[in-house]
Amino acid sequence: MLLDRIDSPSDLKQLSLAELPQLAQEIRQFLIENLSATGGHLAPNLGVVELTLALHYLYDSPRDKFIFDVGHQAYVHKILTGRKDRFGTLRQKDGLCGFVKRSESEHDVWEAGHSSTSLSAAAGMALARDLKGESNKVIAVIGDGALTGGMALEAMNHIGHEKRNLIVVLNDNEMSIAPNVGALHNYLGKVRSDKTYRKAKDEFETLVRKIPAIGGKLAKTAERLKDSLKYLVVPGMLFEEFGLKYFGPVDGHDIEKLVEAFHQAEKVNGPVLIHILTIKGKGYSPAEADSFKWHGITPYKIESGQVVKSVGPPVYTDVFGKTLIELAERDDRILAITPAMPGGSGLLGFAERFPNRMFDVGIAEQHAATMAAAMALEGMKPVFAVYSTFLQRAYDQVVHDICRQKLNVVFAIDRAGFVGADGETHQGVYDIAFLRHIPNMVIMMPKDENELRHMLKTAVEYEDGPIAVRYPRINGLGVPMDPELRPIPIGSWETVRDGDYAAIIAIGPMVQVAEEAAELLKREGIQARVVNARFVKPLDEEMLLSLAKENIPLLVLEEGSEQGGLGGAILEFYALAGQQHISVGMLGVPDRFIEHATIKEQRAEVGLTPENVAQELRKRVVRKRQRAT
Amino acid sequence: MLLDRIDSPSDLKQLSLAELPQLAQEIRQFLIENLSATGGHLAPNLGVVELTLALHYLYDSPRDKFIFDVGHQAYVHKILTGRKDRFGTLRQKDGLCGFVKRSESEHDVWEAGHSSTSLSAAAGMALARDLKGESNKVIAVIGDGALTGGMALEAMNHIGHEKRNLIVVLNDNEMSIAPNVGALHNYLGKVRSDKTYRKAKDEFETLVRKIPAIGGKLAKTAERLKDSLKYLVVPGMLFEEFGLKYFGPVDGHDIEKLVEAFHQAEKVNGPVLIHILTIKGKGYSPAEADSFKWHGITPYKIESGQVVKSVGPPVYTDVFGKTLIELAERDDRILAITPAMPGGSGLLGFAERFPNRMFDVGIAEQHAATMAAAMALEGMKPVFAVYSTFLQRAYDQVVHDICRQKLNVVFAIDRAGFVGADGETHQGVYDIAFLRHIPNMVIMMPKDENELRHMLKTAVEYEDGPIAVRYPRINGLGVPMDPELRPIPIGSWETVRDGDYAAIIAIGPMVQVAEEAAELLKREGIQARVVNARFVKPLDEEMLLSLAKENIPLLVLEEGSEQGGLGGAILEFYALAGQQHISVGMLGVPDRFIEHATIKEQRAEVGLTPENVAQELRKRVVRKRQRAT
Repeated sequence: MLLDRIDSPSDLKQLSLAELPQLAQEIRQFLIENLSATGGHLAPNLGVVELTLALHYLYDSPRDKFIFDVGHQAYVHKILTGRKDRFGTLRQKDGLCGFVKRSESEHDVWEAGHSSTSLSAAAGMALARDLKGESNKVIAVIGDGALTGGMALEAMNHIGHEKRNLIVVLNDNEMSIAPNVGALHNYLGKVRSDKTYRKAKDEFETLVRKIPAIGGKLAKTAERLKDSLKYLVVPGMLFEEFGLKYFGPVDGHDIEKLVEAFHQAEKVNGPVLIHILTIKGKGYSPAEADSFKWHGITPYKIESGQVVKSVGPPVYTDVFGKTLIELAERDDRILAITPAMPGGSGLLGFAERFPNRMFDVGIAEQHAATMAAAMALEGMKPVFAVYSTFLQRAYDQVVHDICRQKLNVVFAIDRAGFVGADGETHQGVYDIAFLRHIPNMVIMMPKDENELRHMLKTAVEYEDGPIAVRYPRINGLGVPMDPELRPIPIGSWETVRDGDYAAIIAIGPMVQVAEEAAELLKREGIQARVVNARFVKPLDEEMLLSLAKENIPLLVLEEGSEQGGLGGAILEFYALAGQQHISVGMLGVPDRFIEHATIKEQRAEVGLTPENVAQELRKRVVRKRQRAT
Repeated sequence: MLLDRIDSPSDLKQLSLAELPQLAQEIRQFLIENLSATGGHLAPNLGVVELTLALHYLYDSPRDKFIFDVGHQAYVHKILTGRKDRFGTLRQKDGLCGFVKRSESEHDVWEAGHSSTSLSAAAGMALARDLKGESNKVIAVIGDGALTGGMALEAMNHIGHEKRNLIVVLNDNEMSIAPNVGALHNYLGKVRSDKTYRKAKDEFETLVRKIPAIGGKLAKTAERLKDSLKYLVVPGMLFEEFGLKYFGPVDGHDIEKLVEAFHQAEKVNGPVLIHILTIKGKGYSPAEADSFKWHGITPYKIESGQVVKSVGPPVYTDVFGKTLIELAERDDRILAITPAMPGGSGLLGFAERFPNRMFDVGIAEQHAATMAAAMALEGMKPVFAVYSTFLQRAYDQVVHDICRQKLNVVFAIDRAGFVGADGETHQGVYDIAFLRHIPNMVIMMPKDENELRHMLKTAVEYEDGPIAVRYPRINGLGVPMDPELRPIPIGSWETVRDGDYAAIIAIGPMVQVAEEAAELLKREGIQARVVNARFVKPLDEEMLLSLAKENIPLLVLEEGSEQGGLGGAILEFYALAGQQHISVGMLGVPDRFIEHATIKEQRAEVGLTPENVAQELRKRVVRKRQRAT
């Protein structure tokens, strides 16, 4: 096995170019075997085996900087940089991160998780290098999907302007996570399919040699024609217009051709784009056949490609997708918008049922939000389905376009709270804090999957501005589903368990944690009330005032940032209402980033467990008793 | 006067095409005269007189939708839609808004203030129209500067994919507010300058007719060559690659040519881009000569173009710019980054002194932030100078790229707090709320211009992650400037006035308001302490605990959102510290958008005046006395 001899890039450099295809084969086998046990981003990594080998074979990491866009395609890079023995811990607590991680290796020079940041990073590194008078290479690897993200295009515009030496590898596999959409995608398709581009060059030069024979006033025109030939022989003219020298397309699974392309690129002074064609899932037939499913995968059986299915109640995502179809059957104003996540957001059924009312805009959260605003303005009921962490990209559009204009946009915010194995780049723990202070916004979170359905009904019937329903990346509780959907009065909370010693105000899955905590306390004779704060905004002011009158200790429980969260909202309400005698405790996500682990482990890490909640409440009840005596 | 007869678009349609140039002349005169008294966005509006006339002459507003990107170039549109009599109130409290405003007129169909939203809005309106089976036109007017904003490019990608009927008018005046940068700008420059493009078409067709004579294996090549001619005769190939049919460039000051271009565009099925060339400030020589200065202007003398200068202490923006130069003289790691606001951010001096360390990235806040992250990673000290309201665009990049990686990026956040005449789209009242909950972030605000200098010193010397200093859009207090700069201990507040009845915790310009309030209370024998909370994060926990021990009423004063602001931070701290006996009042910006007016009027509107602060504190002191007795 060649792979056994590779513990660092310098080991790789000992091999001959001719040996690399065999190593590629071994790495694929390694990935397929290891991920069958741990799960992970299999298909993207199978697609970049040769590319990553070429990079480490040719360049001198970490002096030369490899910047992986999104960063989920860096497994091969991790294997080559001394981390192959840790693959059994992939995406597990204290194990190998599923993304590039600076604390893991000096070879990891730029972290990501969200897409489309790599070109900005490359620009910054190249500019800093030149200011320092250094000469290292800067190489960004970006997929064709990530390229549609606005910030990548902003960066390309600036890179073309600055003209610094850097290499952009466009890893074109025709996919984001879902199949790509957009004009840029169509453009790349044209470039890919037209193989004759590649042999046209010679023919044209012959042709041009004949043109000068055409005399008279056409001479100048002929000159222009010669210039124009670049449009024919350079298929990537769009990138050239942006100021990057284009090479390609190159077969991304042919190491020799890749090496040759990099050699060519190095001769260029200024930014270069190498367009490589790869196959997502390359070398593992189930993944090649359905790279969408195999983008990020749970453990599977290697032979059959059969995925180990988890059993249990339906996940919130699916309940959302199905309920939206139900609602859309009865209201043709309802539209669905996704930024390149039709599957992840549970919208494949909707897309099938209502192809004309489904809009996948590509990786473009900003555009998605503002487009939704305009649709709402024209009387539609757009439902912007987006992960909490990706909605961060559209914060300004939510403020400036949607909330300021008070438009009826529905936000279906998936992956709210901890997200588990994707870790700190993907945690959905800030959306309450970044949405709550925006005027006109309504924010809901259901305690179970049945309530999610009623909240969606509430959202699509709400006609007084934007409204968001956020839900977690977990299975529901398996509660019975009401056949009839009914809207919930805006800003109304519900008491789900009685008790007059103290009250836990909880949202989403924390309601269940609160109930379990209350159950623990009950054994000690402490009767804790549990309130389902199903609206984060507006608050149930009536209930809050009534709690203030009762003057029992409160504990606010949320799987979100303690700074600026529901707890803060309640404190602010009491402060503005002049009701500050009441004791309000807060338990949420503390002021630091929480790394990858299971959701259960992440909750335990910050104390969002029934045991800890019970302990917190116990202290408060005791304290109050002490004060009373 | 033709203009006297125009109170609506239908009046305009009564005129002959030949009369429009005279009307254009009258409108220019109207703008020059009116804005000499009120100030406003003169140069952008002088540039779009003919375009706006053509739009209203040809189309049927509001059935046909005109979407003005940014919206500051809609004065002519306002004049033509019955609002010319209100121009004396422009940008004043309860007067005409400086941007498009739906509550003013049915002809205002889309509001903005931030740039680059118009293409997303157009896409949404066109899609909604088609779903409703309607047939109105959708026309977006976007500048070449705004086109570099990532969300505009995201939208273009989607528009090219959807292929709906809509018209994008690219208003190319070679300027954002400052001269444009970027590869797209260079590209447009090439298109503009090459006049021969326009007459090349005929010549080429002649040439092509000769090519078939070339026989043999070149025949197929010749076919391809014919296809390729579009690259030569269509200068806007980049837009065509994005899927938009390109027309232009057209002289944007020639109404007949504009009308002709729109007629051509209407024949196309699918999205169209009309590239028009205009001159910012057209028709008023001082503005033509310096369209940068005349972009947004204070009142001026028409004859001389002399601007009525306000006298007073230096504005914070200038103190920032000068201090940054001082610091950069001694530390060559310091770089300045601006998203197209070199002048507005006070960086022109820096750019002159350190041209290699100054990066204007165009309208591209996302790219700017992430590029800064990468520069910091490489040992530089990037200072991202950005208006509070525009930093909203980079929220995700601040979370995901800068704070999560804990990189030493300095944020110089200008226009924090109320911004006056620009109004609700530009208020800098959310940055505390959207930054405070992000781990690793440090946030400062100076009480005066002298403290701003020390804070900048503090920021560039801080080596433990991101740090922001926010400052208002006003003049300083005229305090003496310390010759030596010294760093301020992170998280330390200062008591600027003694008193033991109550304490006002204030930030930025609110410190002065607090002092004036304390002065009022002193006359009544109430001694109020004033604390300058110069760090919003981290809080001065020691001082807060000591205040809790004293147990005097507190009032937190901030010119920012009451939701999620400094007040909330203090409440959360006390809640987590189990110190809830202390009474904390909050006075800030309530949960609604605040419209255009002077900053003084805006403060008065929300009660941020010495009188109201005194009244709030008086109530608290009295309440406490009552409780004590």
